Amino acid sequence: MSIPTLLVFSLLFVSSYASVQDFCVADLSQSDTPSGFPCKDPKKVTEADFVYSGVGKPGNTTNIIKAAVTPAFTAQFPGVNGLGISIARLDLAVGGVIPMHTHPGGSELLVVIEGTICAGFISSSANTVYFKTLNKGDIMVFPQGLLHFQINSGKGPALAYVSFGSPVPGLQITDFALFANELPTELVAATTFLDVAQIKKLKGVLGGTN
Amino acid sequence: MSIPTLLVFSLLFVSSYASVQDFCVADLSQSDTPSGFPCKDPKKVTEADFVYSGVGKPGNTTNIIKAAVTPAFTAQFPGVNGLGISIARLDLAVGGVIPMHTHPGGSELLVVIEGTICAGFISSSANTVYFKTLNKGDIMVFPQGLLHFQINSGKGPALAYVSFGSPVPGLQITDFALFANELPTELVAATTFLDVAQIKKLKGVLGGTN
Amino acid sequence: MSIPTLLVFSLLFVSSYASVQDFCVADLSQSDTPSGFPCKDPKKVTEADFVYSGVGKPGNTTNIIKAAVTPAFTAQFPGVNGLGISIARLDLAVGGVIPMHTHPGGSELLVVIEGTICAGFISSSANTVYFKTLNKGDIMVFPQGLLHFQINSGKGPALAYVSFGSPVPGLQITDFALFANELPTELVAATTFLDVAQIKKLKGVLGGTN
Amino acid sequence: MSIPTLLVFSLLFVSSYASVQDFCVADLSQSDTPSGFPCKDPKKVTEADFVYSGVGKPGNTTNIIKAAVTPAFTAQFPGVNGLGISIARLDLAVGGVIPMHTHPGGSELLVVIEGTICAGFISSSANTVYFKTLNKGDIMVFPQGLLHFQINSGKGPALAYVSFGSPVPGLQITDFALFANELPTELVAATTFLDVAQIKKLKGVLGGTN
Amino acid sequence: MSIPTLLVFSLLFVSSYASVQDFCVADLSQSDTPSGFPCKDPKKVTEADFVYSGVGKPGNTTNIIKAAVTPAFTAQFPGVNGLGISIARLDLAVGGVIPMHTHPGGSELLVVIEGTICAGFISSSANTVYFKTLNKGDIMVFPQGLLHFQINSGKGPALAYVSFGSPVPGLQITDFALFANELPTELVAATTFLDVAQIKKLKGVLGGTN
Amino acid sequence: MSIPTLLVFSLLFVSSYASVQDFCVADLSQSDTPSGFPCKDPKKVTEADFVYSGVGKPGNTTNIIKAAVTPAFTAQFPGVNGLGISIARLDLAVGGVIPMHTHPGGSELLVVIEGTICAGFISSSANTVYFKTLNKGDIMVFPQGLLHFQINSGKGPALAYVSFGSPVPGLQITDFALFANELPTELVAATTFLDVAQIKKLKGVLGGTN
Repeated sequence: MSIPTLLVFSLLFVSSYASVQDFCVADLSQSDTPSGFPCKDPKKVTEADFVYSGVGKPGNTTNIIKAAVTPAFTAQFPGVNGLGISIARLDLAVGGVIPMHTHPGGSELLVVIEGTICAGFISSSANTVYFKTLNKGDIMVFPQGLLHFQINSGKGPALAYVSFGSPVPGLQITDFALFANELPTELVAATTFLDVAQIKKLKGVLGGTN
Repeated sequence: MSIPTLLVFSLLFVSSYASVQDFCVADLSQSDTPSGFPCKDPKKVTEADFVYSGVGKPGNTTNIIKAAVTPAFTAQFPGVNGLGISIARLDLAVGGVIPMHTHPGGSELLVVIEGTICAGFISSSANTVYFKTLNKGDIMVFPQGLLHFQINSGKGPALAYVSFGSPVPGLQITDFALFANELPTELVAATTFLDVAQIKKLKGVLGGTN
Repeated sequence: MSIPTLLVFSLLFVSSYASVQDFCVADLSQSDTPSGFPCKDPKKVTEADFVYSGVGKPGNTTNIIKAAVTPAFTAQFPGVNGLGISIARLDLAVGGVIPMHTHPGGSELLVVIEGTICAGFISSSANTVYFKTLNKGDIMVFPQGLLHFQINSGKGPALAYVSFGSPVPGLQITDFALFANELPTELVAATTFLDVAQIKKLKGVLGGTN
Repeated sequence: MSIPTLLVFSLLFVSSYASVQDFCVADLSQSDTPSGFPCKDPKKVTEADFVYSGVGKPGNTTNIIKAAVTPAFTAQFPGVNGLGISIARLDLAVGGVIPMHTHPGGSELLVVIEGTICAGFISSSANTVYFKTLNKGDIMVFPQGLLHFQINSGKGPALAYVSFGSPVPGLQITDFALFANELPTELVAATTFLDVAQIKKLKGVLGGTN
Repeated sequence: MSIPTLLVFSLLFVSSYASVQDFCVADLSQSDTPSGFPCKDPKKVTEADFVYSGVGKPGNTTNIIKAAVTPAFTAQFPGVNGLGISIARLDLAVGGVIPMHTHPGGSELLVVIEGTICAGFISSSANTVYFKTLNKGDIMVFPQGLLHFQINSGKGPALAYVSFGSPVPGLQITDFALFANELPTELVAATTFLDVAQIKKLKGVLGGTN
Repeated sequence: MSIPTLLVFSLLFVSSYASVQDFCVADLSQSDTPSGFPCKDPKKVTEADFVYSGVGKPGNTTNIIKAAVTPAFTAQFPGVNGLGISIARLDLAVGGVIPMHTHPGGSELLVVIEGTICAGFISSSANTVYFKTLNKGDIMVFPQGLLHFQINSGKGPALAYVSFGSPVPGLQITDFALFANELPTELVAATTFLDVAQIKKLKGVLGGTN
């Protein structure tokens, strides 16, 4: 067995694949593209690019929803760029709620790590509501783009991880979209049938104007 | 030039492609799949499968929103199955509104055929509102999955066609999703911050219970 | 209810999503990619990026085909970049024709706004021709990549909008591809069976050489 | 406000969307397709179709690898069919190992719930190894199709959830592929450079023949 | 090392993956879907399903184009169903020509096995012609949906294999699409600018009517 | 027929499509993206960008595997960028072997040009081995991501072309991944069940350390 020959072969063989695209760690300093961010130079990529600790710590739940969403999307964890997957951590204090929201760019799969969560989504075809109380270890899937919510329905804090079939699933919380911006009250009223007083109250709470 | 030889060649050549998939008109009698419905037997397909007149007539706008959406999605127009495109007609009487809604499965492109329409969408990243008054011939694009609306802001009726980059874009009207079903009032309240009275009022109007 | 707390939460929550990809308005000054152009800085995007008036005016039909195609693809309307949808306006004067052509990159859906149009496409599997006369409000779908045409078959001008399931569907008019360039006459003859005199005549009309 | 009119509108409006495809719970009794299984009749779908408890219980780790993989792919959890997401539970007893393997159909994202795991993958471009010790709350992403492994490197049991950007990611454990079947020993030797004695030993352990 | 334990583990482990989708050999007896044919029962699949000899024999070139295309698409070779790849064999006798054509569903990559071939394609953006003489071992790529051709420009027979990035690329030969069917002569004339005499001549040769 | 008018029309018409994306020849000097490299300026693209001779010459088989793989992926042949197709040449001297390997990014289709090749792959669902002896003209398909191999089982040299449904299929040779790098011997042993002596022997042959 000719070892030197093989070594030469091996080295040559490998070098010819220098540009193969195994992964594409996001270079957030460049412009995004429809398929994700341009790739960081593979020669500068290390194992640190594929590991993230940001979803290991509880989010701050001392707020009005008594809950926190801590994402590991491309913006926070560039290693998932182009890989069709991402994750977020949900912390729900007692009484905590992740309000009605959608993810425009991907389906969601939730796994309960601790506590009890009432979760549900609403279909678009017949406005059917699918909701259930989930205990530790239960999983639930929420189809792409549909309104859904999670509520801590237990007596202690709850923790869940939610995965997405996209590195940039997006998150549109209905209340924030309607009341936390400068969308004129009359447009909100006309497009939601909500009373003006109700709109103004929530705009006040959420920092909206107009 | 040997014509008979060519004819034979031509016939044989064509027959070997009998299963080529140029299109896949939906056979709605079979089960749907993630990529769309199974295909109608190509031998039974005629030009009628690719033409539809259902969006040619005005929808009935004598309702509370003074508007009508008439879709030509796979369910109504099986010819678009698998082709990544569909369309709907929007009729807005004076004062008509297409309420806040999302399409979970595709982006939308609107073209104004008649009248004046104020249309807008809300981004998920910063709740930014993008809205503008559109006149005859103007087009506007609404990115996939984001909340958007259309209002007749003119003095006469308005007509628009909206195209989608999917044969099954879906349509989730926020009000219907929240108030036109059996989702318990306390869950709506907890997940939207709306007052119970407001919820009960809209449930009453839209036929919701609980 | 602690409003200041909520406001703080709201602002922090939103800022962490600064890179979420709701849309990707094309920055045409950068190099294109297989998925579309790099995105314009989201902070510089306004509602004007999502609205276009270029398909609102009739195209100039005083030409040999008595017709005009006015596109709103990524190059003309950067807001559709990455969104899987685009549109074009067809104006056909009396006797106007959109000659045989294909769109390499997407299926087409036509809606007749005014007049009468005879439209059709040819399948690749058995060279079957599907064509029909369309009146105001009729729609017809043309599967991706297949030869198709539109002819004004009425007594007045015709107007249609054609949508595509791609922001860059492309447009290859067979006559222009064969006769409006430097492709040598003998190659055209060899690959189309057309007579040399016919080829030279059309090259003359369409500005081709060789 | 005309409530009866609205109710009528609401009911009619909804009925016209009866075939909208919000989800496609797998009907495992029908033949699979390249995009996933045909859909269960939506009218028979309930919230139970979107919830699964199978990954809530520890897998049996009293085996040679002292580990267990408990999947919730389409076969176990039909609710993820067509949604581009799935999950599995990894239980690693002290000294437990998930051997070298690949997922042909999707990238993987691991989150450590309990214990300490040494995980890594090998790139195809330069055979670079990326591995790291992960603690509770750390996440790591493994790009599609690349060899990777997980080892319990702590003093107690470890638990992790791994998500995939596909409902059918597949799992090919290299040892099982090479030694747990009827692939002739001489073919294994010729294609892996392993010694025949080594191959026969592992075939013996893993139940392979020939 | 506990061999019996491992064997038990191994068998159980494997059985739980019985529905994993590694491949989807087409069951041509069922209806096609937009993503391809439903899968043959995996338990009945053998190595014969992945091997095909149909492109090993020269096609019959005693016809007017002195050439033959022998495809191995899903219809001929069900093993490629759902795998995003297929192939065809091109035989060109002396003077043989594969006439102007497109593949609506995928790009093509040609490798010359024997002889000399002049091949080219025409872009849609500016009708630019890209053509070149290829010798044994040369490859050329033809982007999806664009008109292209191959001509035997050598003194002996030529052989090439053409691969496609789709199991159902389709094949639309412009001449056959225009002249080998019942498309009325006046429509061909109106949509191609060809003289009626030229059209009737080619309809005669290719078996078209009307 | 007004020729000048048509010429003007033709020129104007074409200019408006200057940015249409028919192809995207890779500009390897820019950063890669998840969908492939940014495009070379179309105005600088010539026919040379779509033709490659690198797979026309036999690879050097005087090495331990008596075989050579010569790829034409994006890195070697930028013309395939974004087109979903690529090719490689396999040369196998007498006794030559392409060792067990996977392509993380695409399915493979092999056509035998010369000689006799024993080829096979292993499914992930039940570790089933599918292998067969292939003669000149036979084709075999290898589903994405699965372990497979090719062996010259004839008495003379063998030549094959392998096509991929991706311009960047990748190539992970199991032996190189396990033994040709710095992956510590104890990790290899723990994750493969191979004996330490076997691992050290192969690390020695393939240039691995640790």
